[in-house]
Amino acid sequence: MKPVNSNSTAEARIISLGIEIPEVPKPLGLYVEAVQSGNLLFLTGAMPTVLGKPKFAGKLGANLTARDGFEAAKLAATNALAMARHHLGTLDRVTRVLKTEIYIVTTDELVSELPRIADGASELLRDIFGADKLSVRKVVGVANLPLHVPIMVEIVMEVSD
Amino acid sequence: MKPVNSNSTAEARIISLGIEIPEVPKPLGLYVEAVQSGNLLFLTGAMPTVLGKPKFAGKLGANLTARDGFEAAKLAATNALAMARHHLGTLDRVTRVLKTEIYIVTTDELVSELPRIADGASELLRDIFGADKLSVRKVVGVANLPLHVPIMVEIVMEVSD
Amino acid sequence: MKPVNSNSTAEARIISLGIEIPEVPKPLGLYVEAVQSGNLLFLTGAMPTVLGKPKFAGKLGANLTARDGFEAAKLAATNALAMARHHLGTLDRVTRVLKTEIYIVTTDELVSELPRIADGASELLRDIFGADKLSVRKVVGVANLPLHVPIMVEIVMEVSD
Repeated sequence: MKPVNSNSTAEARIISLGIEIPEVPKPLGLYVEAVQSGNLLFLTGAMPTVLGKPKFAGKLGANLTARDGFEAAKLAATNALAMARHHLGTLDRVTRVLKTEIYIVTTDELVSELPRIADGASELLRDIFGADKLSVRKVVGVANLPLHVPIMVEIVMEVSD
Repeated sequence: MKPVNSNSTAEARIISLGIEIPEVPKPLGLYVEAVQSGNLLFLTGAMPTVLGKPKFAGKLGANLTARDGFEAAKLAATNALAMARHHLGTLDRVTRVLKTEIYIVTTDELVSELPRIADGASELLRDIFGADKLSVRKVVGVANLPLHVPIMVEIVMEVSD
Repeated sequence: MKPVNSNSTAEARIISLGIEIPEVPKPLGLYVEAVQSGNLLFLTGAMPTVLGKPKFAGKLGANLTARDGFEAAKLAATNALAMARHHLGTLDRVTRVLKTEIYIVTTDELVSELPRIADGASELLRDIFGADKLSVRKVVGVANLPLHVPIMVEIVMEVSD
């Protein structure tokens, strides 16, 4: 990874790190991907999909590995950023990622890996928004998720006007 | 369903659509049903109960169907609206439903139905607040819920002064 | 429990009730324990740990009892308060606990106890911030949690400048 100038903006970091922010996912039901209230931006729970199809499906510790989980968390986070960028026009309007919630479908055997799996999302956010702007986080192991994906990432952001 | 004038207020739509908003559910513990901070209104997780008793109990895909889940999501959403109306006096003070979180107890076999089941809540909110004011959404399959209900709906709203 | 003057501040009540707020837990990954936006304070999901080690591990109804769950919820809530105090300097800046989310790992047999188990956290918050300032609440039974703990408590607060 190339060194990143800490004065860079989010969009400049995305370019210099070669991160691809995809098209915004299409809703699966009666909801939208982003809603803003004042300086708070709420995003829909994001999944590890590519063009609406799950790239990872199943359960960590069963048919998927912890490494798959890490990559799935990262991919879900890029989809969350796609939602935010679509709403904001540019991720440079993000002043802070406030909260990151990560829902994971895993066997009990992989529970000790949960924080590291969740870091797949958190590393991406750190690389883009800066190590001095980490969010709070909640990691929860759940029964199942839409599209049979093993990971969902829900983000709340603070944005500028 | 009768056509609804898009200029109608939420309370007018509730009347014209014949939607019944019940009495506000009684808390099961040391919490309240609604708390406001600035223009944000936070609501307690709402369940598919009638007069405090679960109308649906069990697991979707086991003793309950996807259609039951849809109806349970709708009923839980009416209870959430009861909480909001009790706090606000009138749902016409709701300027936007910001976030809808839907927790579902289901077998893996019904996972493909999760978005449609969740729409039981989202359709009600669309009918009342308008198709141009959909919220963000998170749908998560969980292990179990209080009162053995199969669905919980948690809503955060933006409200006017 | 000694009677508490309802005019006491949160910090005065903590002293008079002999509640111990521990050191703030160390993050297990790339996140922080508290982030503020305006008057909203978001906290990381808190667990029943002491000095970073789980005091309770396993599943309620299996190797742990409902009473363990109540105590675990209380302990997790003290860790959430530690996060808030570390950020704020003093809990007297908390004007309201807005939302308490409680995630519980339990067998189906203990589901009827979920509200009472969750009250382990809610009682502590009531004792410190006052019975007239209860939060909204969500209680969800989940598959598993980091460190194999049976309870996670996530709190959002309103704070003064």
